[in-house]
Amino acid sequence: MELDIMEIKEQLTTLLEGRRYNDVRQMLSDMNVVDIAALLEEMTDEQVPVLYRLLPKEPAAEVFSYMESDTQESLLRSFTDRELAAVLDRLYLDDVVVMLEEMPANVVKRLLRLVSPEDRRSLNQILQYPEESAGSVLTTEFVDLKATMTVAEAFDNIRRTGPDKETIYTRYVTDANRRLEGVITVKELLLARADQQVGELMETHVISAVTTDDQESVARLFVKYDFTALPVVDKENRLVGIITVDDVVDILQQETTEDMEILAAITPTDKSYLKTGVWATFCKRIPWLLLLMVSATFTGWIITSFEKALAASVMLTAFIPMLMDTGGNSGSQASVTITRSLALGDIAFRDTLRVIWKEIRVAVLCGVVLAVANFLKILLIDRLLMGSPVTLLEAAVVCITLVITVLCAKLVGCTLPLLAQKIGFDPAVMAGPFITTIVDAISLLVYFRVATGVLSL
Amino acid sequence: MELDIMEIKEQLTTLLEGRRYNDVRQMLSDMNVVDIAALLEEMTDEQVPVLYRLLPKEPAAEVFSYMESDTQESLLRSFTDRELAAVLDRLYLDDVVVMLEEMPANVVKRLLRLVSPEDRRSLNQILQYPEESAGSVLTTEFVDLKATMTVAEAFDNIRRTGPDKETIYTRYVTDANRRLEGVITVKELLLARADQQVGELMETHVISAVTTDDQESVARLFVKYDFTALPVVDKENRLVGIITVDDVVDILQQETTEDMEILAAITPTDKSYLKTGVWATFCKRIPWLLLLMVSATFTGWIITSFEKALAASVMLTAFIPMLMDTGGNSGSQASVTITRSLALGDIAFRDTLRVIWKEIRVAVLCGVVLAVANFLKILLIDRLLMGSPVTLLEAAVVCITLVITVLCAKLVGCTLPLLAQKIGFDPAVMAGPFITTIVDAISLLVYFRVATGVLSL
Repeated sequence: MELDIMEIKEQLTTLLEGRRYNDVRQMLSDMNVVDIAALLEEMTDEQVPVLYRLLPKEPAAEVFSYMESDTQESLLRSFTDRELAAVLDRLYLDDVVVMLEEMPANVVKRLLRLVSPEDRRSLNQILQYPEESAGSVLTTEFVDLKATMTVAEAFDNIRRTGPDKETIYTRYVTDANRRLEGVITVKELLLARADQQVGELMETHVISAVTTDDQESVARLFVKYDFTALPVVDKENRLVGIITVDDVVDILQQETTEDMEILAAITPTDKSYLKTGVWATFCKRIPWLLLLMVSATFTGWIITSFEKALAASVMLTAFIPMLMDTGGNSGSQASVTITRSLALGDIAFRDTLRVIWKEIRVAVLCGVVLAVANFLKILLIDRLLMGSPVTLLEAAVVCITLVITVLCAKLVGCTLPLLAQKIGFDPAVMAGPFITTIVDAISLLVYFRVATGVLSL
Repeated sequence: MELDIMEIKEQLTTLLEGRRYNDVRQMLSDMNVVDIAALLEEMTDEQVPVLYRLLPKEPAAEVFSYMESDTQESLLRSFTDRELAAVLDRLYLDDVVVMLEEMPANVVKRLLRLVSPEDRRSLNQILQYPEESAGSVLTTEFVDLKATMTVAEAFDNIRRTGPDKETIYTRYVTDANRRLEGVITVKELLLARADQQVGELMETHVISAVTTDDQESVARLFVKYDFTALPVVDKENRLVGIITVDDVVDILQQETTEDMEILAAITPTDKSYLKTGVWATFCKRIPWLLLLMVSATFTGWIITSFEKALAASVMLTAFIPMLMDTGGNSGSQASVTITRSLALGDIAFRDTLRVIWKEIRVAVLCGVVLAVANFLKILLIDRLLMGSPVTLLEAAVVCITLVITVLCAKLVGCTLPLLAQKIGFDPAVMAGPFITTIVDAISLLVYFRVATGVLSL
């Protein structure tokens, strides 16, 4: 069912060149607003305003809300004040907020001048909440019901206020001071008698978020309770706004991408890969590479300090990459599992001892199996098949090191993210690049200690 | 707003021991069903059936659907057939499917015997769809409208059929052969006149999934179009069922966890960390560790074959970890970015050339900066501060290797996931563990070639 944007682009370009605007209008009217927005991204800066003006007013605003911010900006600049005011009037407030956050100051100023005074107050309020807080993603476009309304009155209220509101199916009930009292769904209203009161039908145990809550923890509430909307209150339990599930899906995707980028030693970004320039990509990657290169210096020093041992047994060097990689892999298995479990809320800091005890047992199992497999490999492949001069004692050193390294790697891998979370750091930073560097150093130290001891070098 | 489950557990245990069942009932009635389900996980096998029977019927089934499958199973075994039939009757079909997939055969048989013949047909149909397909996550509990209905008739229909249906707000319109004709929301119905026809109000450009579509691509449709429900049709465009956004949120979380686990060289699992046993965790991790250990053997052979060069210049060994790590980090920066962008649908195989061209430029920038930084570090810290005997020529070898390694790593890192996707492999497998092994081998080969060339060893 996915459309071939490139094909449509060509057809539209031909139609536009032939000034066949009615055909263009017809083509666009058959498309979903999200697809139209994606299409506009592919058109030239001259074509976009022409196409946009050919859209009917209602979908036009929705299309606008799905466009990338640079296309929005260039389109905004081509608008007259009247056109701009019309678009702003039809956009949902939370989409306007997302847009304002991306625009340069002069555009923001022009936009704020053109919205209604009431919207301006709401926008200024939302823009003041900290980034990635519940307040920054809420919408104030909701209508609250009163407990004393009848079902029939509630429906009148919904019919009167519905068209402009993003979600109408979950309605919150507030008292005279706008304090949150209950929640009721349109489904419950539809199934009730017209003369019943909202107060007797509503659910009074309402789960809500506070404006200062982190957006990720809010998203986790949606995942846990299968909500489609969540009320956001201030410190006095007054209803400030609502968060809708479509925004939560975006938040979850964004937070996961962030976690993955951090795991891969990249500074997170909001922009998609192809929209990010070479220089911006370079800037997101180089600090980590530099930092990790410098921290790898320590492993270099460890090797230098065991120079004599290495010179006495060159075979030892051949196993360094294998030991480092196996340690790194063991460590990141543990650290990524723990980081993800923390993000999903499956474990918390209080589980630290259970986690450590489990990782110790898994590590011993893994270490022993790897050591045995490695010993057999050295015996059968390296010595018999390849005729390598590696001695049985050297093989024993490598295998003992494997067991200890895997154990240390798993322990470091599971405790660092938990500690990071505890002291308010992002566990992903710990789970990713740093584990490798730490485990490298540990595995080399263990290796050379065991080697000098067993082989008496 | 989160509850302290452990505290409630203690209170409940005391109440149960004192047989104060009314107080228990009161406590439970104040709690959200999801929290009750989480609470039951913490209670003993004897307490669970007692508590469950104290719940009112309506929330009881919902609580059941949120329980972990092993708790569900032990609870099921304590049910009489009549109790079980009552629960099944109240569960949504898609939740029954999820449950059946986790249960042993004898339990499944008993369950299928107790559901209505109509539900049994639906269940058997859903269970036949391939795992992780759109068909396997849909629910058949929806009611379709007809285009000839008036708004008033549509509301009668919704009121009559609503209570048992998971979502009532998005309604699909079908023709006499159950072919999908349009979609209409309760919001649109509420805002229309009672005598208008559904056919004139409905949206006829319906985006739908086919039963055999992959669940991840279906989830991506929800993300892209901000749906709350999506119709699923068979090959003849007949409406088979619907997928709701709450399931999509779970699918997204599950698919992301899978990707992360694969990136960290772990066989993915559905179970949460603390629910997975030591042996199961070991089994998910050891195959990858073994495979990667064996593949690291190649790097060992590369080192062995340059034994002479290493013996001539022991300093060379000290830089091996740094070169391997920097190569690995550079590669995984590219591979994780590309893998995630593929998962989000930001890039596709047709973008390969654009991706490669971009990564080449980023790689050259990164490589040069790292080389310069490293040269300065060797000069100032290693030689001046630490009195290391490393020569300028050796430093040059390391820096030239850095530039080439970073370039190769980024190229391998960006092309492998794209190739994997093209030939139907999971890009995450390529992005994760394998990149490190491949880049290790490349960096060592480059290092020794450059070293033997420049230093004429």
